[in-house]
Amino acid sequence: MMKAWKDYLDKNRDRFLEELLELLRIPSVSARTEHKNDMVKCAEAVKQRLLDAGADMAEIIPTDGHPIVYGEKIIDSSKPTVLVYGHYDVQPADPLELWNSGPFDPVIKDGKIYARGSCDDKGQFYMHVKALEMMVKTKTLSTNIKFCIEGEEEVGSPNLGKFVASNKEQLKADVILISDTSMISMENPSIDVGVRGLSYIEVEVTGANRDLHSGVYGGAVANPITILARMIASCHDENNHITIPGFYDDVVEATPEERKKLGAAPFNEAEYKKDLGVNALWGEKGYTTNERTGIRPTLELNGIWGGYTGEGSKTVLPSKATAKVSARLVPNQSSTKITEILLNYFTKIAPEGVTVKVMEHHGGEPYMTPIDSSAYKAAAAAVKDTFGKEPIPVRGGGSIPICSLFEKELGIKIVFMGFGLDSDNLHSPNEKYDLFNFYKGIETIPYFHQHFAQMA
Amino acid sequence: MMKAWKDYLDKNRDRFLEELLELLRIPSVSARTEHKNDMVKCAEAVKQRLLDAGADMAEIIPTDGHPIVYGEKIIDSSKPTVLVYGHYDVQPADPLELWNSGPFDPVIKDGKIYARGSCDDKGQFYMHVKALEMMVKTKTLSTNIKFCIEGEEEVGSPNLGKFVASNKEQLKADVILISDTSMISMENPSIDVGVRGLSYIEVEVTGANRDLHSGVYGGAVANPITILARMIASCHDENNHITIPGFYDDVVEATPEERKKLGAAPFNEAEYKKDLGVNALWGEKGYTTNERTGIRPTLELNGIWGGYTGEGSKTVLPSKATAKVSARLVPNQSSTKITEILLNYFTKIAPEGVTVKVMEHHGGEPYMTPIDSSAYKAAAAAVKDTFGKEPIPVRGGGSIPICSLFEKELGIKIVFMGFGLDSDNLHSPNEKYDLFNFYKGIETIPYFHQHFAQMA
Repeated sequence: MMKAWKDYLDKNRDRFLEELLELLRIPSVSARTEHKNDMVKCAEAVKQRLLDAGADMAEIIPTDGHPIVYGEKIIDSSKPTVLVYGHYDVQPADPLELWNSGPFDPVIKDGKIYARGSCDDKGQFYMHVKALEMMVKTKTLSTNIKFCIEGEEEVGSPNLGKFVASNKEQLKADVILISDTSMISMENPSIDVGVRGLSYIEVEVTGANRDLHSGVYGGAVANPITILARMIASCHDENNHITIPGFYDDVVEATPEERKKLGAAPFNEAEYKKDLGVNALWGEKGYTTNERTGIRPTLELNGIWGGYTGEGSKTVLPSKATAKVSARLVPNQSSTKITEILLNYFTKIAPEGVTVKVMEHHGGEPYMTPIDSSAYKAAAAAVKDTFGKEPIPVRGGGSIPICSLFEKELGIKIVFMGFGLDSDNLHSPNEKYDLFNFYKGIETIPYFHQHFAQMA
Repeated sequence: MMKAWKDYLDKNRDRFLEELLELLRIPSVSARTEHKNDMVKCAEAVKQRLLDAGADMAEIIPTDGHPIVYGEKIIDSSKPTVLVYGHYDVQPADPLELWNSGPFDPVIKDGKIYARGSCDDKGQFYMHVKALEMMVKTKTLSTNIKFCIEGEEEVGSPNLGKFVASNKEQLKADVILISDTSMISMENPSIDVGVRGLSYIEVEVTGANRDLHSGVYGGAVANPITILARMIASCHDENNHITIPGFYDDVVEATPEERKKLGAAPFNEAEYKKDLGVNALWGEKGYTTNERTGIRPTLELNGIWGGYTGEGSKTVLPSKATAKVSARLVPNQSSTKITEILLNYFTKIAPEGVTVKVMEHHGGEPYMTPIDSSAYKAAAAAVKDTFGKEPIPVRGGGSIPICSLFEKELGIKIVFMGFGLDSDNLHSPNEKYDLFNFYKGIETIPYFHQHFAQMA
């Protein structure tokens, strides 16, 4: 590692961490209207941190939803420009009772930061802010840097599109750099070359116009929970293949070669099962675990509720039952089309005696990044510099809905440099981010800029 | 109507109602531990009302759960004794947002009392307290009366058995009279001759040991909601016949004659559907609506929950999903046996990759009352006196778990004199009880005592 960077990082590690913890203490949950003020507070903090790190300017852009933070450091218009995208919003923290410490009261334990957003994505985008500071203060910045840190990633970025479309000049760059994914492990560094798309819907089944006594009416009126369960059960066959007509139509099957490469990535099934506490894995017959989460589209139930869910028993035949259902999509599938297919499916299979209301939550298109681009090569070289190993290109299971938007509006490619781990409990209780990974990210990012300045 | 009763009722109707409303204001929800003090308060109130109505004695009997109120008025040990059973506990009031007025803030609207417990069972057992007062004050009481008003009916009466078994002498009676059922309508008075039994279980499906990111793990790990939905869907076939092995084994099929009689009870399908707001009814193929709720056992989902159930979207693959499942049973089925069958079924069909935990909630045996007994005849005669019409004997869909217990311990039969309506929203938001029915019950009950004194 370049000595100036190393010295600077060594001298400031505690402050860098303390600053991150401060950000983590702001409950910036974008999905919940009661956190509207926390969102503003968090955006203000991000703006100030960018200025403190050495940005020429930073501003808060109001949207119809939560604000976007934009900042930049332009050193020389003839040099390549890197646009860093990240998000300061986080997933809701519930179920709260499963957290070992407060989700917004970060604690360090066994070298890990436990807090909502520690990895996704405050801990990761903040590495870029600190890398900027490090490069500015050591006078080693070799690219122009722009930051677009939004507050609605976890709710599908409903307002980012408009901002990007009407600020193309301001956002002009040579590559978009995103740290919002993970590596296989610190011993097996990897770079995501694709993220899955997302379709997300909600299905509400209504039977009678009110909750009924299950003795007086039970057996004579459709039970919305039973009907919803049947609808859900109908979505997969006995091989866990999705049965919804048209769902797989646009999937481009991976070639045997691609599958072979994917199969070469280290994977220890026994450890994977042990970590999850399950006695068997589950999934589409004919595919490996890595294929199921990487190259195959999936359909998951994210939530369900209906009837009496309290303590003890209540003999009610409920009026309504509701489920949240989402699909992960692979390249060539269209989120818009699959959402339409899902909405139609649940509407169409509703039997007599119930009414079904469907609604759409946010979606996002799948995205693939080319590994022969100079940006990918710069990322791979940076990882090799600090990890001492060539990173493995892998397909990630998650979704970053704005990827295809950026490509379409700005005409530039995205490179993912994620430093998280799959076991970081993203979207779950006890989300964590290893201090090692946090500092390793800050170490690695300047190398990316250096390589990219030379290659681009 | 005997003139003395009529005069007394006319003079005291407003006070009778006001006293009921006071009882309804006590949130005596037995299922919720936070209402423990309300339960005691309600028991105290019931005890005082019995004394005020003219009981010789009334007392509160503590149990391991909520207290039982016992009271009696013994006029002559050579006269027949009627034991009135009722319950002062009520079902939980949620979902609160569906109530048009506070569940424990009773309002009178269009001649109906809207409140949790207005019909089930405060409004109904209180008719007996006021009938006692009426008979005592007009010096027309012709039987001995005992009251056993418990506080745990809605949670399966877990402590009543012990009380009954150890107080057989005190509870000795010639008949048990219960007002906790309904009539077809005020124009078509009916008497329930049977109630269904109940088995109630809870099924918890656990996949991974924590909530997971549905992108990172989706498709590779069993989703407990999907699995639970499949388990629920497997419980009925396409004719809505229950498929759980052994479920129907002990059912004694109704004879064509019984079915013919049942078919003669007035039933207007169009009105029934309109009241419920459904475009079609649902149920076991080959049976009418009245048969489905009367002579057939059923399996209903009472509640389900799992994953993210809040506003917006959260891409989580949940660790757990849970359902509350109950069966209504018909004569000759055993609640103990069916509960065992249900618990085994859900345990046995659990696929690899999940663990299933089952637990038992309260149950109760089905019960039939003989229509050739003097007690039934006295009830039928009383109804005829005040309604001007012979009541139709019908099979009710609900359950009163303590019936078989009383019969076993005390060796006496039960007569149901219910004055509710199926449309009273029992166990549902906006539970109501018509003032007409409340007063009609108070009018009718003294005739029962009069007839029973002569017939027994």
